[in-house]
Amino acid sequence: MKAVRLHSYHEQPVIEEVPEPTAKEPFDVVVKIGGAGVCRTDLHIIEQQWAEKSGVTLPYTIGHENAGWVHEVGPAVSNVEVGDTVILHPTPTCGLCHACRAGDDMHCVNSSFPGINADGGMAEYLLTSARACIKLDPETRPEDVAALADAGITAYHAVRKAAPLLYPGTVCVVNGAGGLGHIGIQSLKALTAATVVVVDRNADALELAGTLGADETVLADGKHVDAVLDLTGGNGAEVVLDFVAEQGAQQDAFAMTRRAGSHFVIGYGSNIDIPTIDIISTERNVVGNLVGTYNDLAELMVLAQAGKVTLHTKKYPLDNALDALADLDAGRVRGRAILTP
Amino acid sequence: MKAVRLHSYHEQPVIEEVPEPTAKEPFDVVVKIGGAGVCRTDLHIIEQQWAEKSGVTLPYTIGHENAGWVHEVGPAVSNVEVGDTVILHPTPTCGLCHACRAGDDMHCVNSSFPGINADGGMAEYLLTSARACIKLDPETRPEDVAALADAGITAYHAVRKAAPLLYPGTVCVVNGAGGLGHIGIQSLKALTAATVVVVDRNADALELAGTLGADETVLADGKHVDAVLDLTGGNGAEVVLDFVAEQGAQQDAFAMTRRAGSHFVIGYGSNIDIPTIDIISTERNVVGNLVGTYNDLAELMVLAQAGKVTLHTKKYPLDNALDALADLDAGRVRGRAILTP
Amino acid sequence: MKAVRLHSYHEQPVIEEVPEPTAKEPFDVVVKIGGAGVCRTDLHIIEQQWAEKSGVTLPYTIGHENAGWVHEVGPAVSNVEVGDTVILHPTPTCGLCHACRAGDDMHCVNSSFPGINADGGMAEYLLTSARACIKLDPETRPEDVAALADAGITAYHAVRKAAPLLYPGTVCVVNGAGGLGHIGIQSLKALTAATVVVVDRNADALELAGTLGADETVLADGKHVDAVLDLTGGNGAEVVLDFVAEQGAQQDAFAMTRRAGSHFVIGYGSNIDIPTIDIISTERNVVGNLVGTYNDLAELMVLAQAGKVTLHTKKYPLDNALDALADLDAGRVRGRAILTP
Amino acid sequence: MKAVRLHSYHEQPVIEEVPEPTAKEPFDVVVKIGGAGVCRTDLHIIEQQWAEKSGVTLPYTIGHENAGWVHEVGPAVSNVEVGDTVILHPTPTCGLCHACRAGDDMHCVNSSFPGINADGGMAEYLLTSARACIKLDPETRPEDVAALADAGITAYHAVRKAAPLLYPGTVCVVNGAGGLGHIGIQSLKALTAATVVVVDRNADALELAGTLGADETVLADGKHVDAVLDLTGGNGAEVVLDFVAEQGAQQDAFAMTRRAGSHFVIGYGSNIDIPTIDIISTERNVVGNLVGTYNDLAELMVLAQAGKVTLHTKKYPLDNALDALADLDAGRVRGRAILTP
Repeated sequence: MKAVRLHSYHEQPVIEEVPEPTAKEPFDVVVKIGGAGVCRTDLHIIEQQWAEKSGVTLPYTIGHENAGWVHEVGPAVSNVEVGDTVILHPTPTCGLCHACRAGDDMHCVNSSFPGINADGGMAEYLLTSARACIKLDPETRPEDVAALADAGITAYHAVRKAAPLLYPGTVCVVNGAGGLGHIGIQSLKALTAATVVVVDRNADALELAGTLGADETVLADGKHVDAVLDLTGGNGAEVVLDFVAEQGAQQDAFAMTRRAGSHFVIGYGSNIDIPTIDIISTERNVVGNLVGTYNDLAELMVLAQAGKVTLHTKKYPLDNALDALADLDAGRVRGRAILTP
Repeated sequence: MKAVRLHSYHEQPVIEEVPEPTAKEPFDVVVKIGGAGVCRTDLHIIEQQWAEKSGVTLPYTIGHENAGWVHEVGPAVSNVEVGDTVILHPTPTCGLCHACRAGDDMHCVNSSFPGINADGGMAEYLLTSARACIKLDPETRPEDVAALADAGITAYHAVRKAAPLLYPGTVCVVNGAGGLGHIGIQSLKALTAATVVVVDRNADALELAGTLGADETVLADGKHVDAVLDLTGGNGAEVVLDFVAEQGAQQDAFAMTRRAGSHFVIGYGSNIDIPTIDIISTERNVVGNLVGTYNDLAELMVLAQAGKVTLHTKKYPLDNALDALADLDAGRVRGRAILTP
Repeated sequence: MKAVRLHSYHEQPVIEEVPEPTAKEPFDVVVKIGGAGVCRTDLHIIEQQWAEKSGVTLPYTIGHENAGWVHEVGPAVSNVEVGDTVILHPTPTCGLCHACRAGDDMHCVNSSFPGINADGGMAEYLLTSARACIKLDPETRPEDVAALADAGITAYHAVRKAAPLLYPGTVCVVNGAGGLGHIGIQSLKALTAATVVVVDRNADALELAGTLGADETVLADGKHVDAVLDLTGGNGAEVVLDFVAEQGAQQDAFAMTRRAGSHFVIGYGSNIDIPTIDIISTERNVVGNLVGTYNDLAELMVLAQAGKVTLHTKKYPLDNALDALADLDAGRVRGRAILTP
Repeated sequence: MKAVRLHSYHEQPVIEEVPEPTAKEPFDVVVKIGGAGVCRTDLHIIEQQWAEKSGVTLPYTIGHENAGWVHEVGPAVSNVEVGDTVILHPTPTCGLCHACRAGDDMHCVNSSFPGINADGGMAEYLLTSARACIKLDPETRPEDVAALADAGITAYHAVRKAAPLLYPGTVCVVNGAGGLGHIGIQSLKALTAATVVVVDRNADALELAGTLGADETVLADGKHVDAVLDLTGGNGAEVVLDFVAEQGAQQDAFAMTRRAGSHFVIGYGSNIDIPTIDIISTERNVVGNLVGTYNDLAELMVLAQAGKVTLHTKKYPLDNALDALADLDAGRVRGRAILTP
């Protein structure tokens, strides 16, 4: 089958023929890919940012945001059948460790992360496990929902954690209105009654944010921290969801939080540097966020099926994967680039 | 009456005569001080670290950790009477703002903080309000419990917030076994079944920590992060209570947390500087902590009354307040220095 | 001034002249009533159902759901001024007890409940306290929002407690689509993404429920428990908000909950009778609900101001209070009856 | 192998030879039983109380509280090996349904409950699954810990759910100081700083409760509700853990809760019957409890290993199983009866 494989860091991946995966272990599931999202993390992988953390051996197939149809199942699989339409939680987990037993899928001590540290979904077929499969309405087109498998779940997970803090009268800043931010805005409107203030450097992105339910939009023009303080009576926001967290945005995000507020870090790239006296004298928090749980993704699919969360996508045939990566790198993708069979 | 008053930053306070306060407003309470704690923050105030944040006008009386006997009450006071033994929550609050109505005393928008931004308790009498008074068993000696009014509540508040994370099998690191750390250790043993690992630079402090219930002690000798990782199977601790948070201890504290763990910042002094990729790839948190609520202090007094939390103190007559400050600055105080009438 | 006063149980109240209240205590506030809601509890009071629990001495003025304008304030009142438009939390609280310090206003050990155990708001003026006043936009007409002061806060409080259980994919049954139920439906839509199923005996009430956002409606015709089970795949609902809780509705409500589900009792009147084996073999809960906190009401006013919660009302001049009570008793009021000056 | 099998309701089980189970499915684990607890539920099964709920077909082997050594494993089992000492969570779960993915093992939609609805552990060998196995220190004797597999986890689960309500200064009533109650008392002392008040009809049981950490004991002599109210300043307890819940004890337990308090139902047998006006006017709760999660049992084993929870047991050889059942029925067992190989 065809697959998009990385042979050397700092060089473009290669589209080449590799053997199809097969279901050998009891819980193995092979999925025929119907949609594979292209993510900024794929660029970071190529740039070697994840090499040490993932420990992956090159060459391998990238693509960690996948949906499709079940193609083959191992003998113990009982939750899906061949032909089922599925979206895939990004990490096949063991189901046996303490984290799995608590529902904290991202902290499984025996999981893999296809596309990060194992062969991923920018290919015709992907090997995953029964515990990663969420069965969808057969009418669903995988290419329409694939982006929810990573961008979506990540934004939703942060919103789900923040929701108890966001009672009526509170303010949530969405810092960065890209692919994740869009899902964040819609998830906030679905799960909370908070006022949603969206900050971005791009006026078009802010306009789109308005159509998705943003109550206020603020151009990140250097005066945006003050603008957010003005919108919140000088106090700042109870929650800032920081989908950027690089190039100073992470410092601005913290500065936008109010006393007892929380800065949810979701994007990454730079360091955050805060005087501890500022942390304690206002009792503010910095909260880490990493993808999300299987149930998070299942809940997000409920919102998607109800039309409460939608995502703009740009489709590319698998053969044009390198164009998709280049477009993303050049800022030419609005919403999410998706590879299709 | 006599009071310890700061006239100029970077100079020693002066013990001088000032008028006694009186109860003018309906909820005013004047307390005859029986014990006033001497805190590292008093040194920081003298060093001008709090000048901008507090906005206080010099001269004023310091001392923010107080207990004593009710001396005079305003006409609307119903919860205490003249003669009652009381410990004082550090911030008289309004009882009317959103934070007060939610029990978040430290985030009251109309509170004062005697000893920080108003006349404090290193004096014969202190003006406070009914909402700051916790009535104690008349047998209690104020000088024995005064240190719980700030050091105690601060340590307890952090433990109370952390307790839900500390189920059996988890590990809590207490970073810094000074006055606050001692109360932290005892509060952890009272509220949780977690394994308590205490880290300090001082071997004597560690020995005392052991007698207070520490399960493991680690000398902060440069290899302490590795030592904590070794004690936790290479994983780190679910919670690190960082009572130091300066001079690199804050970086070590974060490094001691495990995946999905939390670094509670309680001390202060230096900046914390973390790559956002480390925050998100492990989903760790940095949690601010600021003193505690009125009910926190009330609960802590229950533990104190039951003998579950005790504190080593060194008593100084009010006239010797400058000696107490000097001893604290020179590291000559084990436990807490307390001024007595 | 005129007031609606109960002289004898089981007899109609009398509209008569009584002295105007005045602000004597520091936190007293006298409010000129702009709207006073008429509630089924007023009927229950007349029927002597509350006599023992309230301990009130007759005669007294009823009316526990009030909004208006500040008319006079005591010397210590700082949160409202004469002329302010206000809605009143039903229980002036002490601000000093453990419950008050935790934000649990309904469990204050020193509160009164005007209209239940003290003179209420079916009058020209009402004596309350600063801690009961929520300041509103001066444009607000008290008669439009008064019903939120008791019916509204009660429904909202239950929804607020249930919201963490109601993630996407869950079902919430609203049992009873009267005045409280209507606010419950709207609050559920504002705070959660759960599917809302409304059950009522009245087809008109169900139709109105549909316009307020109910996803499904079920006529309570004897087959309604089965109908709810059918709508939930045979499982029942994660949460049932029971605004009826009498005449068997409380048994049906429990029967509609699923494993690990919760039956929120909000209405009252009959006994609930459940085999303990049914409680433990499915791990279901019965949850009490009592009015709500000051902050609950403040949050609800945010929703009301944003147009997310509205209430049908039928206005009666204060002089026609007995007509309003009679209409309510006879089932002739759709929404809420409100007395106006 | 030998097994204790029930052939007819209302008749004694028979000890007879049956084939040994084998590990056929990928996650199957066969355990050589080292200790099998004898539980009041076994008596209830014989009395046909569970027949309808379990739907089991007779004859079958009873025994739902088991520990032992791994004897054989299916090909996909990775968490235990032959020879490992294990305690067994009572319900082998699917690991795939929503409840499993949230860590709510008892609400798995595809689990079995050996000893209740499938062959249990009063036998030489038991068939279970990898997801039920908790690996223990090889030094552990299964007969010493078996009772924690059901009695223990059930008591601990209730305490774990109640712990956030039990801050210093609160009171928890333990209603019933039998096998479960003993573990409840010890778990309360390990996880909370609440005052523990134990109620029982048996003076010996109360004496033992005192040695396990009970702060107060109350003989259930008809005046016990008043006695608990007296001990709590007339208020009642924040939490009542009701390990009896039959023959009126469930009504007393509710009567012992204070405003905003919670009655945790753990035992079963009779109906609970409460006026809804009592539920709402005090905002009290009735909370169902069913066994516990896999992680609950793992945490309890941490407490057991640390010596914080111990259990009195009376050992019987498997051949004498009928004696154990008879002794339990006749009230001749102090602590827990355990069958040994």
